Amino acid sequence: MAGSAAGLFFEDYSVGQQLHHAVPRTVTAGERALYTALYPTRVALYSSDEVARASGLRESPIEDLAAFHIVFGKSVPDVSRNAVANLGYAEGRFHRPVFAGDTLSARSEVIGLKQNSNGKTGIVWVRTEGQNQHGETVIDFCRWVMVRKRDLDAPAPQTVVPDLAGAVAVSDVPVPQGLDFTGFDTAWTGDARRWADYKTGDVIDHVDGVTVEDAEHMMATRLWQNTAKVHFDRSARPDGRRLVYGGHVLSMARALAHDGLANLQMVAAINGGAHANPCFAGDRISAWSEVLDVAETGAPGVGALRLRLVAVKDEGPAGALRDPDGRYRDGVLLDFDYWGLIPV
Amino acid sequence: MAGSAAGLFFEDYSVGQQLHHAVPRTVTAGERALYTALYPTRVALYSSDEVARASGLRESPIEDLAAFHIVFGKSVPDVSRNAVANLGYAEGRFHRPVFAGDTLSARSEVIGLKQNSNGKTGIVWVRTEGQNQHGETVIDFCRWVMVRKRDLDAPAPQTVVPDLAGAVAVSDVPVPQGLDFTGFDTAWTGDARRWADYKTGDVIDHVDGVTVEDAEHMMATRLWQNTAKVHFDRSARPDGRRLVYGGHVLSMARALAHDGLANLQMVAAINGGAHANPCFAGDRISAWSEVLDVAETGAPGVGALRLRLVAVKDEGPAGALRDPDGRYRDGVLLDFDYWGLIPV
Amino acid sequence: MAGSAAGLFFEDYSVGQQLHHAVPRTVTAGERALYTALYPTRVALYSSDEVARASGLRESPIEDLAAFHIVFGKSVPDVSRNAVANLGYAEGRFHRPVFAGDTLSARSEVIGLKQNSNGKTGIVWVRTEGQNQHGETVIDFCRWVMVRKRDLDAPAPQTVVPDLAGAVAVSDVPVPQGLDFTGFDTAWTGDARRWADYKTGDVIDHVDGVTVEDAEHMMATRLWQNTAKVHFDRSARPDGRRLVYGGHVLSMARALAHDGLANLQMVAAINGGAHANPCFAGDRISAWSEVLDVAETGAPGVGALRLRLVAVKDEGPAGALRDPDGRYRDGVLLDFDYWGLIPV
Repeated sequence: MAGSAAGLFFEDYSVGQQLHHAVPRTVTAGERALYTALYPTRVALYSSDEVARASGLRESPIEDLAAFHIVFGKSVPDVSRNAVANLGYAEGRFHRPVFAGDTLSARSEVIGLKQNSNGKTGIVWVRTEGQNQHGETVIDFCRWVMVRKRDLDAPAPQTVVPDLAGAVAVSDVPVPQGLDFTGFDTAWTGDARRWADYKTGDVIDHVDGVTVEDAEHMMATRLWQNTAKVHFDRSARPDGRRLVYGGHVLSMARALAHDGLANLQMVAAINGGAHANPCFAGDRISAWSEVLDVAETGAPGVGALRLRLVAVKDEGPAGALRDPDGRYRDGVLLDFDYWGLIPV
Repeated sequence: MAGSAAGLFFEDYSVGQQLHHAVPRTVTAGERALYTALYPTRVALYSSDEVARASGLRESPIEDLAAFHIVFGKSVPDVSRNAVANLGYAEGRFHRPVFAGDTLSARSEVIGLKQNSNGKTGIVWVRTEGQNQHGETVIDFCRWVMVRKRDLDAPAPQTVVPDLAGAVAVSDVPVPQGLDFTGFDTAWTGDARRWADYKTGDVIDHVDGVTVEDAEHMMATRLWQNTAKVHFDRSARPDGRRLVYGGHVLSMARALAHDGLANLQMVAAINGGAHANPCFAGDRISAWSEVLDVAETGAPGVGALRLRLVAVKDEGPAGALRDPDGRYRDGVLLDFDYWGLIPV
Repeated sequence: MAGSAAGLFFEDYSVGQQLHHAVPRTVTAGERALYTALYPTRVALYSSDEVARASGLRESPIEDLAAFHIVFGKSVPDVSRNAVANLGYAEGRFHRPVFAGDTLSARSEVIGLKQNSNGKTGIVWVRTEGQNQHGETVIDFCRWVMVRKRDLDAPAPQTVVPDLAGAVAVSDVPVPQGLDFTGFDTAWTGDARRWADYKTGDVIDHVDGVTVEDAEHMMATRLWQNTAKVHFDRSARPDGRRLVYGGHVLSMARALAHDGLANLQMVAAINGGAHANPCFAGDRISAWSEVLDVAETGAPGVGALRLRLVAVKDEGPAGALRDPDGRYRDGVLLDFDYWGLIPV
């Protein structure tokens, strides 16, 4: 069933179901270079083998979000091909770096189901896991999507709503084996601000903005082998526009965050995330961050920051996230809550 | 003479002439990644080193059509720089996979000439061959193009029309040395349909469509070092549009064919092909296939399908290929006849 | 101070100041492939490992201008973030090829300062140097830019105008260690013209033209981690257009120069350069060259040509560079003076 062109509908899912996603993918230096061409990333650890080695890794890995996009992309045909909306993320953890030459495969388990009261759609919760060629978990995360029913007369399944953590506990934030920031030189990044220079409540404007093109977001989304029709096919929406993959906005915002968070080297955990409004070619994406928490890790020289990363379109400095009714304002594209690793 | 900027005109060719094409090219993991960014390809053998190794190859090769485009691109300055039309293909064979690190060079022999009755153009047939750094043939194919005369008073050459096979015989379809699909696991592709599940006459709709951008087709065409002016220069056509390289449509259609032919792993031979109508940025490409023949090969677990791959623009499911007069309908972009290898 | 998002203003510079630029960057086969996708380059030495080995190098290096763009890009946050104009180049030398796997870092020394008479801006001269992971200089060059003052009341610094050479002397033109063109086969390039076939005063039209897209120049400019706002953000200019990075025009022109200078293999030194007019998406770039000097080098089989490379927009063959008032004509994009290496 996995990988079929029609995809799965709400009534095709059952709690406990295992979805083995096609197609395994070997990542290479090519993906690394393309990530740099597609996003204005300047994370030292992902830019330089020398920095990675000085930080205890064997070489510079593929950017964390690139690995996330590949695993996410594999799940699309089985999880979100018929999704109306991508509703949220939780309990995401980046267990191991992915290096050029690694082959990633992905699978998901259905962990929750709830039919909507309209009887036409339902919510599917899955835990998706990406593995490398050694069978080691490199990433896992939960997400939930609203999926259409094929047959409106199909009976509603028993409602199972998984108990997901509001945030990954500090003790559960993975730190890559061997990571050591005790020798981290901020001359590599051009920014002296380390872990101790940030405190809960800080808001950081990331200064730059980038106007998005169709050719770019389609190339990025294809690179992750994410084939969701709405990103590529102008006949897929009544307005003839191609929807930018939410992960493209995420990677753009994370790269823009270099200005103000230049020493934040790795995304280690995803606490939550929402794609608040759609993004289209021609939109200008900019971003701001808020420090939600600061924590120590057991690893040498490695501190953690819990950050909210907000991407907005056609706006200036950090503003309100929601309108008086509590809904995301129209200009907000992404509200992403994660743990990142930074030298102390 | 090869490689000169002005290119060759009809009267510059003679039967038996050898054209040594510039410039040798080393392919790398970068080309592999770019192919994935440019086309929605999900062929398991070309996506994963693990799948390739389990199929008897030393690692995942460069996609077959990428190798074809590189060899084709090298022939452009000497064969089709002054071509009015690319008329057809025949007797194409993919003898050996191309791996990252291989260096490809190309040469062509003129095998036929026929001046048109208008006295302004003529047809040139060539057999083009791509070799790797060991002097081994990796690809060869025939194509014929209509080429302008420089000097309308130049005498017509003796007409020589080569005797080309209507299709590559099954016994001549190359199977890469060592290829073994006996352990091929369809969980890799998410589609259970193997060789025995297809029969002559089957028509397969490939579901998805992709809208094409100028930036994408230009990057693709440059990647193959194909410098034909019409693809890049808005002053090259009266309508100011840049013509999409026919091979871009081919690769797009082949990638879209994953939905329905997910286990078809390698293109092994080209029986024929026609670029029926021009494609431009903004067109939505979709595709369908027809099974023309099924055959066994001598290789373990490896079956062959002869397929017609049709790319159309701005259309729905598979329809008629030609109008009542026998001409390709306006919506047809590509009619491509090939042998592909698939696990039995 | 280096790398700060606000960048440096005129009064922040002092003669002798050392600027250590962020972020080190490891280059790979991915950058090589992307360069080919972005520019119609067909330089044999950069296209083929076999040609590079036959020319005395261990493998095909990263294209010379790609290395230049990476080093240049690193200097942007510290040198030209608040620049009004990029005024010129001098004394550029390409000391060593850059190979996949090399990690480049960059630093600059301020070598001149001159406040403009309007009191609002000043000229900053820097010598920028790129090093590999062994601490060896791979590239150095001088450039000067006009930079805004933050505080108009800041006192003018003492004027220091560096004494820069009008051209790199032949004896100072670097030739990569081991480079040997005695076995160079012009069949690799398809053009028989060697060093002795060019003479001072020759003007060469490069025939082809390329129409530029926003997605392409933004991907190129990001690939060099050059984050200057005007290239990416449609809100950065009143006309809503994104300015094409001058280096994109340079690389496009250098690639187009294959037609007529196919055997010119390496850029060895930069004598001077000016970005005469802005370039935007939709412009059609073409190029012509003028031979300014011919010289021998001490290396076996390696000759040098001093060339003016001119990029123009929406024009035909080589024409006047300047109007009767001595200013660059509106159609001129780039006037670039360099030494290149070519087989004798």
